[in-house]
Amino acid sequence: MNESGRVEAFSDGVFAIAITLLILEIKVPEGAGEHLWTALGAQWPSYAAYVVSFLVIGIMWANHHTVFGYVARVDRTLLFLNLLLLLVVAALPWPTALLAEYLREGEASHVAAALYSGFMVAHAFTFGLVWWWLTRTGHLFDARVDVEAARATRGRFALGNLIYPALVGLSFVSAPLTLALHGAMAVYYALNQLPIPTKEGAGEGAGEGGTT
Amino acid sequence: MNESGRVEAFSDGVFAIAITLLILEIKVPEGAGEHLWTALGAQWPSYAAYVVSFLVIGIMWANHHTVFGYVARVDRTLLFLNLLLLLVVAALPWPTALLAEYLREGEASHVAAALYSGFMVAHAFTFGLVWWWLTRTGHLFDARVDVEAARATRGRFALGNLIYPALVGLSFVSAPLTLALHGAMAVYYALNQLPIPTKEGAGEGAGEGGTT
Amino acid sequence: MNESGRVEAFSDGVFAIAITLLILEIKVPEGAGEHLWTALGAQWPSYAAYVVSFLVIGIMWANHHTVFGYVARVDRTLLFLNLLLLLVVAALPWPTALLAEYLREGEASHVAAALYSGFMVAHAFTFGLVWWWLTRTGHLFDARVDVEAARATRGRFALGNLIYPALVGLSFVSAPLTLALHGAMAVYYALNQLPIPTKEGAGEGAGEGGTT
Amino acid sequence: MNESGRVEAFSDGVFAIAITLLILEIKVPEGAGEHLWTALGAQWPSYAAYVVSFLVIGIMWANHHTVFGYVARVDRTLLFLNLLLLLVVAALPWPTALLAEYLREGEASHVAAALYSGFMVAHAFTFGLVWWWLTRTGHLFDARVDVEAARATRGRFALGNLIYPALVGLSFVSAPLTLALHGAMAVYYALNQLPIPTKEGAGEGAGEGGTT
Repeated sequence: MNESGRVEAFSDGVFAIAITLLILEIKVPEGAGEHLWTALGAQWPSYAAYVVSFLVIGIMWANHHTVFGYVARVDRTLLFLNLLLLLVVAALPWPTALLAEYLREGEASHVAAALYSGFMVAHAFTFGLVWWWLTRTGHLFDARVDVEAARATRGRFALGNLIYPALVGLSFVSAPLTLALHGAMAVYYALNQLPIPTKEGAGEGAGEGGTT
Repeated sequence: MNESGRVEAFSDGVFAIAITLLILEIKVPEGAGEHLWTALGAQWPSYAAYVVSFLVIGIMWANHHTVFGYVARVDRTLLFLNLLLLLVVAALPWPTALLAEYLREGEASHVAAALYSGFMVAHAFTFGLVWWWLTRTGHLFDARVDVEAARATRGRFALGNLIYPALVGLSFVSAPLTLALHGAMAVYYALNQLPIPTKEGAGEGAGEGGTT
Repeated sequence: MNESGRVEAFSDGVFAIAITLLILEIKVPEGAGEHLWTALGAQWPSYAAYVVSFLVIGIMWANHHTVFGYVARVDRTLLFLNLLLLLVVAALPWPTALLAEYLREGEASHVAAALYSGFMVAHAFTFGLVWWWLTRTGHLFDARVDVEAARATRGRFALGNLIYPALVGLSFVSAPLTLALHGAMAVYYALNQLPIPTKEGAGEGAGEGGTT
Repeated sequence: MNESGRVEAFSDGVFAIAITLLILEIKVPEGAGEHLWTALGAQWPSYAAYVVSFLVIGIMWANHHTVFGYVARVDRTLLFLNLLLLLVVAALPWPTALLAEYLREGEASHVAAALYSGFMVAHAFTFGLVWWWLTRTGHLFDARVDVEAARATRGRFALGNLIYPALVGLSFVSAPLTLALHGAMAVYYALNQLPIPTKEGAGEGAGEGGTT
């Protein structure tokens, strides 16, 4: 367990499998006969939940990958915290299917959306734990990382994490709107890279212009 | 996220999982008793859809792999466009199961075949977006690629993409014929490599005679 | 597509996923109440089919891996033949579930066992095609392989393939016996390596004493 | 099959897939309407079983990875014993679903917990076989390993394996308590690394302070 590369490869596998299992929540309508278009149209919450969760897991993977690209050593605590993070990621097909099932069902839609948002809170929390441990220990990072500057980002990490609890609250107003905002945030984070402070220049985006 | 190799490994994982999940759409006939041969024979649309989708995803993987073999750098836009491409690929077990379910059901067979063909259009479109971004930016390619010549291939890419919309139209004539043509196109593309223009010689097939 | 390593990694992924999806064919008995032991015991065909298919796919992977360890170049034909091989491997969870479902059902058990054995014939056939193409072209092998000696093994490959058609025949005598023999053959092949003739000494087992 | 790295990559794939398939045992409550919170709450055994099995498989992976990090050569016997180990790991989603289904059902809960614990015994046994073969042959290890000291650990391995049979016994007292103890042991092993005796210093944890 001494190579961050192997931990990352295992994590990548879990991300890739979880993202691909999402499609299993979309069912084939049975016995629709001549009304197949209608039956397919009625399943729109499944499609919406699939697209949003796909983008969300894709971005989670990208951010996980960016951080681990700067990790040179893995200790048992990091291993365990990463396992907790993966436990949340691998679970995502379930709240996705739940939200798809109940998105149009009044009271239940709020419960499902709150639980879906709660998984995002849990992911942000476990991701924050990984980051907190990396910045606290310092020596697990590779030599490029400016550990002091990285420590200073903890507050910003925590701030970003306030958005997800807010979406838990919004779930009780409108489940479809909550799902749409999760999608919008995924697109936003897709195009705006998580910055890792490096010694050459704090705030430089990880991997910008990097070569293979 | 600065190594094209890691993006490709993640993508390869999604392709490998999606292609292997296809088998889940073929069901075990229940309670067939002495009529098992008959019950198995009646499932031929599932077998046909499995074989065609397997070849289709296999070729999609091969072409994706060929293109990314010439990518040296990955920026956030490419990451996002590739994620959209994977979103379509990972979804393919669903239209496959849908087409298998409705292949013999008159009106519904046309709807299912059109949707199946629509996913191929969507794949060709997202693949075209990836190629457009790579040729537009230029600097993401590695040094072997002749960027000017690569840009000139955009028209050919778009032309090739006209076949899939035509198959959407054909879906309303005959669903089995549409499926058969998707299979034929997969075999054709399997044996005819996507050419990437390189400086040593435009039109040379990617990787011909390459060594490990 | 010019690196045999990437084709092998993709193939390894398909093998690993197919072998792990096998468990989905074993169901949790519902509403068994106090009779759970009995209900679990009644599912023995599922356990037997799981164990045999797991070993079979494991050995298929090992042999595939041994052969590709000597492949330096991949052309489009090899890519396509390998895709056909993977098409059969990825399908194996289905005949496994089918045989488990019908193993004790008289006439239907013979049909299921014959189909299961038929998939082994299909695998041996596609594996034979890959080997035939490798020995026919010759230049796809890496420098260690004695191409002439490898060509001479074709007959032995074909001979080995006679066992599986025989098991198709045996299926109509006894399905459980057929399944047991598939398991026995997997254990036999697990411990007896596929030999690849090399220049240093024809008949030397691939990788014996090899280092990482 | 001559590179321990490839055997490990295949094994890693099986671990990653098995751990991610666990989520499929958690169902979406159907038709819960306004009582969704209640319906979700009633599923707590599924959540508990998911979390415990996720941690258990995660730690199994970490330990497997630690041992194989010291393996330089793979012979056919090791290949086969590793395949048996993977057969048990890949099966774990099934006893997990079984225990979740019957955790609150009196007599049946004891049967399900005993079977779940039995799979842990089986895993410890196959892991012990792999370790026994590695220490018996000796030459499969890489040069860092102190083979004599490694042999001396066999007794400790066997001792550790006594805990799991004890949990089989405890299953007949309380299934939830048994599940909780499996979880506690996973957390314990997560934070306490399996030591591999090396020549530089027996008892040193594998990979402590290692670099990529």
